[in-house]
Amino acid sequence: MNHFYKTAWLISLLILSSICIARAQSAKLPNFIIILADDLGYGDLSCYGHPTIRTPHLDRMAAEGTRFTQFYVAANVCTPSRAALLTGRLPIRNGIFGKRAVFFPNSANGLPHSEMTIAKALKSKGYRTGIVGKWHLGSKPEFLPLQYGFDSYFGLPYSNDMGKVGSFPTQTAPPNNNPLLPLYRDNTVIETEPDQRLLTKRYTDEVLNFISKNQGKPFFMYYASPFPHVPLYASDDFRGKSKRGLYGDVVEELDWSVGQILKKLKDLKLDKNTYVVFLSDNGPWLIKNRLEENGGSAGPLFEAKGSTYEGGMRVPAIIWAPGLVKANTVSSAVATSMDLFPTILNLAKVPLPNDQALDGQNIKDLLTGQKDKVTDLVYYYDSDRLYAIRKGPWKAHFTTHPSYSPEAPVPHDPAWLYNLEVDPGERYEVGRKHPEILEELKKAFEKHRAGVVPVAPLLDAIVEK
Amino acid sequence: MNHFYKTAWLISLLILSSICIARAQSAKLPNFIIILADDLGYGDLSCYGHPTIRTPHLDRMAAEGTRFTQFYVAANVCTPSRAALLTGRLPIRNGIFGKRAVFFPNSANGLPHSEMTIAKALKSKGYRTGIVGKWHLGSKPEFLPLQYGFDSYFGLPYSNDMGKVGSFPTQTAPPNNNPLLPLYRDNTVIETEPDQRLLTKRYTDEVLNFISKNQGKPFFMYYASPFPHVPLYASDDFRGKSKRGLYGDVVEELDWSVGQILKKLKDLKLDKNTYVVFLSDNGPWLIKNRLEENGGSAGPLFEAKGSTYEGGMRVPAIIWAPGLVKANTVSSAVATSMDLFPTILNLAKVPLPNDQALDGQNIKDLLTGQKDKVTDLVYYYDSDRLYAIRKGPWKAHFTTHPSYSPEAPVPHDPAWLYNLEVDPGERYEVGRKHPEILEELKKAFEKHRAGVVPVAPLLDAIVEK
Repeated sequence: MNHFYKTAWLISLLILSSICIARAQSAKLPNFIIILADDLGYGDLSCYGHPTIRTPHLDRMAAEGTRFTQFYVAANVCTPSRAALLTGRLPIRNGIFGKRAVFFPNSANGLPHSEMTIAKALKSKGYRTGIVGKWHLGSKPEFLPLQYGFDSYFGLPYSNDMGKVGSFPTQTAPPNNNPLLPLYRDNTVIETEPDQRLLTKRYTDEVLNFISKNQGKPFFMYYASPFPHVPLYASDDFRGKSKRGLYGDVVEELDWSVGQILKKLKDLKLDKNTYVVFLSDNGPWLIKNRLEENGGSAGPLFEAKGSTYEGGMRVPAIIWAPGLVKANTVSSAVATSMDLFPTILNLAKVPLPNDQALDGQNIKDLLTGQKDKVTDLVYYYDSDRLYAIRKGPWKAHFTTHPSYSPEAPVPHDPAWLYNLEVDPGERYEVGRKHPEILEELKKAFEKHRAGVVPVAPLLDAIVEK
Repeated sequence: MNHFYKTAWLISLLILSSICIARAQSAKLPNFIIILADDLGYGDLSCYGHPTIRTPHLDRMAAEGTRFTQFYVAANVCTPSRAALLTGRLPIRNGIFGKRAVFFPNSANGLPHSEMTIAKALKSKGYRTGIVGKWHLGSKPEFLPLQYGFDSYFGLPYSNDMGKVGSFPTQTAPPNNNPLLPLYRDNTVIETEPDQRLLTKRYTDEVLNFISKNQGKPFFMYYASPFPHVPLYASDDFRGKSKRGLYGDVVEELDWSVGQILKKLKDLKLDKNTYVVFLSDNGPWLIKNRLEENGGSAGPLFEAKGSTYEGGMRVPAIIWAPGLVKANTVSSAVATSMDLFPTILNLAKVPLPNDQALDGQNIKDLLTGQKDKVTDLVYYYDSDRLYAIRKGPWKAHFTTHPSYSPEAPVPHDPAWLYNLEVDPGERYEVGRKHPEILEELKKAFEKHRAGVVPVAPLLDAIVEK
């Protein structure tokens, strides 16, 4: 009998421990890494058809994951696009809009502390949270990343052309009153005007260290590269190496950086439980006769950064998580950067905040290939003026405006209608053929406008000296 | 001793037979399949960045082979481009040029019989040679494919809009004097005005049968799809299925067709010894306000079919031969369809003809990834007027002309200079910055013109009634 009990006890122990292990495994929360490029165009990667920029690591990321061809950001310039990504909300709701379009070094405001960010939400669930790179949601001490749910920060608080160098290092930099470009570690400036040629390498090291250090816990890393925003800088290993000139060198170094991160995840066996999202914050910056070859390419899309045409707001986007996200898939589902907030919260089992309206949707089913959703889209100019709307394949422009042009906006009545799935380049206006669709989009346009009450704009206030 | 001799004899026999097997294997010539799309644009496949056309088989072909991003054809319209592909020679040398731009049903001429074609060259080496699809190098009996080295033919002798239907089946077809569209088997018309919705399926069956029938011999198959040239037709299985409208349906059926061919090669274990080349004959056909969504996309490139800008003459091109051609490779080497002639002859151990000047080069080393060649290129308008030249990354336009425009050509002195590797969309004219390069290209332009003596044009003569 003694032997019987011993055996029975051992068996029970085995069953119990296996239950515990199963529970522990099912409770193992996934990690998240968002890699955000700056001003990278829809057409600037090999896997999106660029003829001379070679991006083998991002191409492999696409082959092992899902590459999106109708993925949008919420704004056509940096600051509001980033605010929308982190909050899942349109700029017009979180206040990150205004005449100045983005935050500058002398801006008085930052992202409202009442906003829930992906970092804050995940931190509440015990995630380790880090940001490396460009913040651009406020640069006064109270608006730095650690005040929004991030445990650690390493990077520049705004765009890389907002120091003494300016946008065009090969030309004479315009004299400006900007302070020296500050490089932060957490809440402290550790250097000014850092050598930008080393930024991609230094940022990559920071991301890899963060992953290594936090491999035992669930983590969230937001890696916002300063590039290929001008001024362009590549390290010695990449400068002069691409066929596409300095712009290509910079993109190829960013591709290398992504490759390092995916390799680290594989080496640490975190690849089966980590979602990596790669995307750009808006279209390429093309200022005719100023940027020339320093600006990227929107590929088949019309127009660029600053525009409400597709080239301004549709971006390259790849989501990778071997075993979790459908591999070797090109998805033409319509999705937006604001969808990341509810999707990540859902995957991390964090309830959505119930005190603020969300503009993103949970796209988990898109990642597993179970759905091919078409979301309605709104295209805001300067983040507060509704210019266009998309419903299904149809897009109606109620106002257009050449990007970075002093010309006045041009209202259209009837609106200009395009079928984006058939005509992604917005070449063939088809409103006369489809008056009933024009009518439907007009109603949707008015319904959206009536449904969103803009808060006060935060981008325009300047620090008093 | 008896035993000793028996053993020795057996050993010798073994050695001899293994030598014979090795010889037989090394002498096994590769098969070749050229799949030529009609008016498919640079940007029309998933793997070249199209947002809504899904081409999983061509994408996989690219992943298992080499995808070219700077691959050119010799002419910006059908007939001369096809003549150049099959002969490795510029239209201005083989006579396939003229005011009419292409052959029509009432054309009096065909490809000169003095021209060596890939088919004729391979046939001399014992290859079985077949063509399925669009010929377009002469439609009088003496100019049909069997008169140029092909053993078998199944297809339409010219474009699919040269029968009674015309280019725009959804509109009223313009009345025309064309004879009924003839479908040939070898030298015989077996049907007229065949149901074009079935053409891709029927052609695919013909290609698969040809492969099965000739699996024991070396073979060459030239499969020239009539699509996505207008009028567009897809079978019931594909019509209405793509997001890109009928154009997308047609391209997706062509993609299926390619998938069937690759599958057949794998099933018959011919995939390790068969080179498959997929390309288009010229850029997409975009006639503003006429073709609209029935025309394709040149992606990031400027202009289209009929133009000497990149959109007219740079095409999607994938070369596949597992184990022979470098896999998972995106090559930005500059190559042309005229390179196929000398490359295929070399791989098939057929000497090059020594009585005619060739414009193509052997690109075998590009296929194995050992070289990344940059060829000089010439861009002819209507195949006889030299408009532009490319040398390294630089392209100089000495004349430009909007495609399909009644406007007069515009000469440029100094020529318009673009760096295609940095600026594939030909947006930023940089001649003032690089006068020495302009000078170099001007010399190359004049040297080429002086070096080629045009033969008489063959496209313009009409059959007397």
